[in-house]
Amino acid sequence: MSLPSTAALAQRHARIRESLETLNLDALIVTPSANIRYLSNHAGTAGILVMTRDAAHLLIDFRYQESVRALQASPSACPAFRMWDVPASYEEALIGCLSEIGVTTVGFEAAHVTVARHEWWRETIAGRGLDITLRSTERIVEQARIIKDASEVAILRDAAARLEQVMPAVLAAVREGETERRIAGAIEAAMREAGYERLAFDTIVASGPHSAMPHYRAGTRALAAGDLLVLDFGGVLDGYCCDLTRTVSIGPPSREVRRVYDAVRDAHAAAVAAVRPGVETSAVDAAARDLLRDRGLGDAFGHGTGHGLGLDVHEEPRIGKPRSDVPQVTLAPGMVFTIEPGAYLPGFGGVRIEDDVLVTDSGCELLTTLPRELLTL
Amino acid sequence: MSLPSTAALAQRHARIRESLETLNLDALIVTPSANIRYLSNHAGTAGILVMTRDAAHLLIDFRYQESVRALQASPSACPAFRMWDVPASYEEALIGCLSEIGVTTVGFEAAHVTVARHEWWRETIAGRGLDITLRSTERIVEQARIIKDASEVAILRDAAARLEQVMPAVLAAVREGETERRIAGAIEAAMREAGYERLAFDTIVASGPHSAMPHYRAGTRALAAGDLLVLDFGGVLDGYCCDLTRTVSIGPPSREVRRVYDAVRDAHAAAVAAVRPGVETSAVDAAARDLLRDRGLGDAFGHGTGHGLGLDVHEEPRIGKPRSDVPQVTLAPGMVFTIEPGAYLPGFGGVRIEDDVLVTDSGCELLTTLPRELLTL
Repeated sequence: MSLPSTAALAQRHARIRESLETLNLDALIVTPSANIRYLSNHAGTAGILVMTRDAAHLLIDFRYQESVRALQASPSACPAFRMWDVPASYEEALIGCLSEIGVTTVGFEAAHVTVARHEWWRETIAGRGLDITLRSTERIVEQARIIKDASEVAILRDAAARLEQVMPAVLAAVREGETERRIAGAIEAAMREAGYERLAFDTIVASGPHSAMPHYRAGTRALAAGDLLVLDFGGVLDGYCCDLTRTVSIGPPSREVRRVYDAVRDAHAAAVAAVRPGVETSAVDAAARDLLRDRGLGDAFGHGTGHGLGLDVHEEPRIGKPRSDVPQVTLAPGMVFTIEPGAYLPGFGGVRIEDDVLVTDSGCELLTTLPRELLTL
Repeated sequence: MSLPSTAALAQRHARIRESLETLNLDALIVTPSANIRYLSNHAGTAGILVMTRDAAHLLIDFRYQESVRALQASPSACPAFRMWDVPASYEEALIGCLSEIGVTTVGFEAAHVTVARHEWWRETIAGRGLDITLRSTERIVEQARIIKDASEVAILRDAAARLEQVMPAVLAAVREGETERRIAGAIEAAMREAGYERLAFDTIVASGPHSAMPHYRAGTRALAAGDLLVLDFGGVLDGYCCDLTRTVSIGPPSREVRRVYDAVRDAHAAAVAAVRPGVETSAVDAAARDLLRDRGLGDAFGHGTGHGLGLDVHEEPRIGKPRSDVPQVTLAPGMVFTIEPGAYLPGFGGVRIEDDVLVTDSGCELLTTLPRELLTL
């Protein structure tokens, strides 16, 4: 497990503190586990981090304290750190911490805190007569996370490259008569062999009619000649996610399969070609979408073109059509995301091709480099 | 895949509609995927369900529409169903749906909707001059889900029983020199063989010093003589989760290992003996906790005694100390949860024993029945 150094965390903290200063906040309550990990190296599924102008306060229950102590004795210790015990309720412990450290204007992450939790905080603060004002904030940690630093790029590159080791074992498992679920098992065994600590998401092995369902998982259906087979899988390495899709033809492809496949491959290439700093994410989406529309497959491509990759398998930036409820993002060097156009024709089948890309100074680097031609097995 | 019938869903809908009537609501916006699945059989990771007094409106994007259509043509179709296309934004589609069906007093789940999302809904409704009032609700679907119906109990029983098939392969993989991660691989392969569709959570294989960390996962450490080894794993069958922990001694256990193990086993038995209808969940927790305290291990048991199992691997009821921020639950027949006391001694190691129980009319049924004595390998 290679973790960011104390110095790397200090740089991240500096960015968060710039936001605290700009927004005139004494502290920020950080609640999603990926944001907590990004700022503290603590990788548990519980915890609350309170970032103040000069310290990082981690509230953590018994289950994680032993591993946090080990972390703090390592070269990846969180700087300016204080651990707070959570004997029973995280919510009680949070209010106690805020009150004891004496912060009065405190931001919380509106995209992650539920209405019920916020209400409890507000009412408890008021009920106890504490001088604390809660302020809604947006994307403070996410805006830092969207640009990967050198240590993150190194891990993401490694995570994506290891998929090369996985693919031969996967293809060896694909044959007529084999079930989707057993192929998923072969994929997962190969990913573990390649060193991933866990799956990034439930493996998709979608054969024949199932391939027309973009988010099908893996069932008991056995592969038959003439099937399209969509394989979508990814692993987590040192906390960071990779994500790959390839489509296979079981037996010789028909003319129509070729036509659909070529359109998706060309849409994928068009989207990749559109990636460079200064471009809006929606323009990358449009490059794939327009090409599929021109080939008569506009209605067959109903999902977005991609999603950011990092500590979460779906994070910013979203590569899709412009939406009224999410901010547009302009590409910048250090962003990492998937490009994954597809075409899904109910009763016929589906095709998806997915790679992971890193935005560079002049364009992009493909982190996943497996061949993109139609595989026939 | 065995799914609840249309009639079973209709019964669940009737319970939700009783709440709508009591709370004087025209509709409830349902957002967590497990709640949506419980009420509609739709198992995707996206979707919004709007339950009205007479219909179930599922808002769903392109990726899932083909599988929803297949579901609606089956004996597990959602009753009084209408599918709404989500062309781009779920939030836009939701406001459009509420406006078109003409509901005016609409509940949302305060424990699941974020402050940012609620703000966007509220502002959009106001900005468009719509006659819709949003009302915060608590635990409407959760209170139905906490009591499992006959079809759910059958699946949970099957899911837990299959762990018996998994254990021999797991124990065959445990030997001095083997790594935690390879043992985790053997567990996961055996779970897939046993028919689970996926893991319920990241498998824990915690050896030696790692066993003192209750939420450690699995790393590269190799087993050594004298280690305690905590194995905690679970699978998902037809959407429902099971969860099991056993602790193994690598080589003959020391006297102190025996003493700690026996205390945890006795705490487990005390908690199981406390389970019956009418008892508060905190009393089950206290049964385990008091016993460990009497054996001098009070400080070594820092987590709760158990958690509910169902469509989520952590759901209601919580079996722990009373807390100011969550409602107390009184046990009733049909509740299913884990009993998992432990003792963790940094530098020495840890012990945890976990089983799944169903509350019956007179006490409880152990769904996991593997031996609970200390295994020595």
